[in-house]
Amino acid sequence: MRAAIMRDHKLVVDNIPVPEPGPGEVLVKTLACGICGSDLHALKHLEKLIDLAKRSGGPFVMDPKRDIVMGHEFCAEILDFGANTNRRLKVGQRVCSMPLLFRPTGLETVGYSNDNPGGYAEQMRLTEGLLLEVPNGLSTERAALTEPMAVGYHAVQKANLRADDVPLVIGCGPVGLSVIAALKLKGVHPIVAADFSPRRRELAVQMGADVAADPKQKSPFASWSEMAAYKDPSKAPPMAPWMPGPPMRPAVIFECVGVPGVIDSIMASAAANARIVVVGVCMEADQFQPMFGINKELNIQFVLGYTGEEFTATLSNLAEGKVNGDPLITGKVGVEGVAKAFEDLASPETHAKIMVEPWRS
Amino acid sequence: MRAAIMRDHKLVVDNIPVPEPGPGEVLVKTLACGICGSDLHALKHLEKLIDLAKRSGGPFVMDPKRDIVMGHEFCAEILDFGANTNRRLKVGQRVCSMPLLFRPTGLETVGYSNDNPGGYAEQMRLTEGLLLEVPNGLSTERAALTEPMAVGYHAVQKANLRADDVPLVIGCGPVGLSVIAALKLKGVHPIVAADFSPRRRELAVQMGADVAADPKQKSPFASWSEMAAYKDPSKAPPMAPWMPGPPMRPAVIFECVGVPGVIDSIMASAAANARIVVVGVCMEADQFQPMFGINKELNIQFVLGYTGEEFTATLSNLAEGKVNGDPLITGKVGVEGVAKAFEDLASPETHAKIMVEPWRS
Repeated sequence: MRAAIMRDHKLVVDNIPVPEPGPGEVLVKTLACGICGSDLHALKHLEKLIDLAKRSGGPFVMDPKRDIVMGHEFCAEILDFGANTNRRLKVGQRVCSMPLLFRPTGLETVGYSNDNPGGYAEQMRLTEGLLLEVPNGLSTERAALTEPMAVGYHAVQKANLRADDVPLVIGCGPVGLSVIAALKLKGVHPIVAADFSPRRRELAVQMGADVAADPKQKSPFASWSEMAAYKDPSKAPPMAPWMPGPPMRPAVIFECVGVPGVIDSIMASAAANARIVVVGVCMEADQFQPMFGINKELNIQFVLGYTGEEFTATLSNLAEGKVNGDPLITGKVGVEGVAKAFEDLASPETHAKIMVEPWRS
Repeated sequence: MRAAIMRDHKLVVDNIPVPEPGPGEVLVKTLACGICGSDLHALKHLEKLIDLAKRSGGPFVMDPKRDIVMGHEFCAEILDFGANTNRRLKVGQRVCSMPLLFRPTGLETVGYSNDNPGGYAEQMRLTEGLLLEVPNGLSTERAALTEPMAVGYHAVQKANLRADDVPLVIGCGPVGLSVIAALKLKGVHPIVAADFSPRRRELAVQMGADVAADPKQKSPFASWSEMAAYKDPSKAPPMAPWMPGPPMRPAVIFECVGVPGVIDSIMASAAANARIVVVGVCMEADQFQPMFGINKELNIQFVLGYTGEEFTATLSNLAEGKVNGDPLITGKVGVEGVAKAFEDLASPETHAKIMVEPWRS
């Protein structure tokens, strides 16, 4: 089968064997698979990613010298069943799945693996028990947004938002936009977002941001402060006397950039007692000033992925129109177009999410 | 009056003017004042401390070129009253206070200030409204432990401990020992602690640790795992499938060292979903790997100081014998002995907390 393969830190198109579905597994045809920012990182920083996963028990363990077919944001169609499958769903049905395989030997990933090709290949093997049927009315490309939209949904769940919280979303790439959609779904107001790109700010507003600030014009934290000041300061809860004032509604800052230095710059500018949710995936060593955190009693919550329940809820939310991810989708390519798409995604003005359709010639 | 003064990055003894108590302020005689690890840091890293406070709105704003008299862990005796005081307490009474002044111009600190000498001087001015009377039965040196013990109490409050949590205290200097005392007060078991120093491990056990591990012999995280494994694994709550197993009771790790690299090494070794409470005060830039946090969805809570309620509760707890800080006190000096005491505190084998008694000749 044809696939866009990560080989020697480059993306090349080649034929590889169709994967064999093992016991409890199905063979599927990839219908659409989004390109994730993590894949761009992985292409650049593969060895670092693997090293860090090994050192911390993370899931991204691969041999960088062997082929890897990435792609973990997919919608697919059932082609065939392995042994010991219950075949509740039928050949031809469209499905989504978390990009994981539950195998007798343990958990494996799909798309960050030498052995389990992801959605940049024509076919994949998946665990039958993880398959979710795509509801009839939902288009394939919308269904393929389940994974990236589940990431924002999970981040917002982990933020444990309280009534008075005012969120600030730093970075409006697909991750930030997914967080904004999840905040909107929760009925949170105001939602403050920030991105250097005019196009991304436009998307942020389309996805539900009340304010999309340009950091070149004004600090995102100043934009946030305008929205978060108590209209009646006497209603503000008491705060520790040495905290820098004035009292503000609690800050929940979503870091959705994922490059070194961003966490530190957020810590430097965040309001006292802010909670920082790190959704961006920075695969390099980073520097920070602990005193910024100490002086303001900041909290940092790192997040990864989603639970099975959150993934399922996200597919439902897309199907019911509660979440609209359409503005994200800015392009479609076949496997031959993946390398160029990776390059194009470096510029925020043209693209947000490019879908790979490996069946395209 | 005589004082041990930080001048040109050295501690010198000199005469300085007695501070004038302003409106709502009292003049006190310092009876005893503990030397804090932060003071050792400040002597080494004063400019950095000030720069970071300025950049993040922290309370430590001083002119490093002018004299600073440190000392913020004190018990004192009332000598005189300024204007507009209600004189509820009388001359001669012993008092504790948070090291803060509430002035018409705003909040100021005592002990990290050019204008408000701390407890390494014979006399201080304090805000009358913050004074707490030392209960009759409580010795002066025990009362002077209120401030450092309140730090551990606050850290444990901020940790929001749940029934199943198993704490791990990294570093058993005065901060770690104070955290252990607060955990014991809360009835938490088991308490796992770790320190390279045999003397500090001994103190940890005296303060309430169930296990005091030697990191040279075995990783503190391995010691923690032995205590935190579910005896009946079927009772473990579900966890995200890609988290490194086996299931453990939730980890709450108190970072009580405060030097660069410790946060990262904790992040590398912590169990999945661990909450890290940063109580140690690292005044330098630090490096970390965000992927360690991401892969395991770690949470980092930075803490500083205590609330007024926590400070008051700690003095009561000491007075009622619910908290015993005696093992911490390992020496006493006059102002002439402060510089030497700072040197001695570099070695963990001899000293934990040295009390300065500026009235000693």
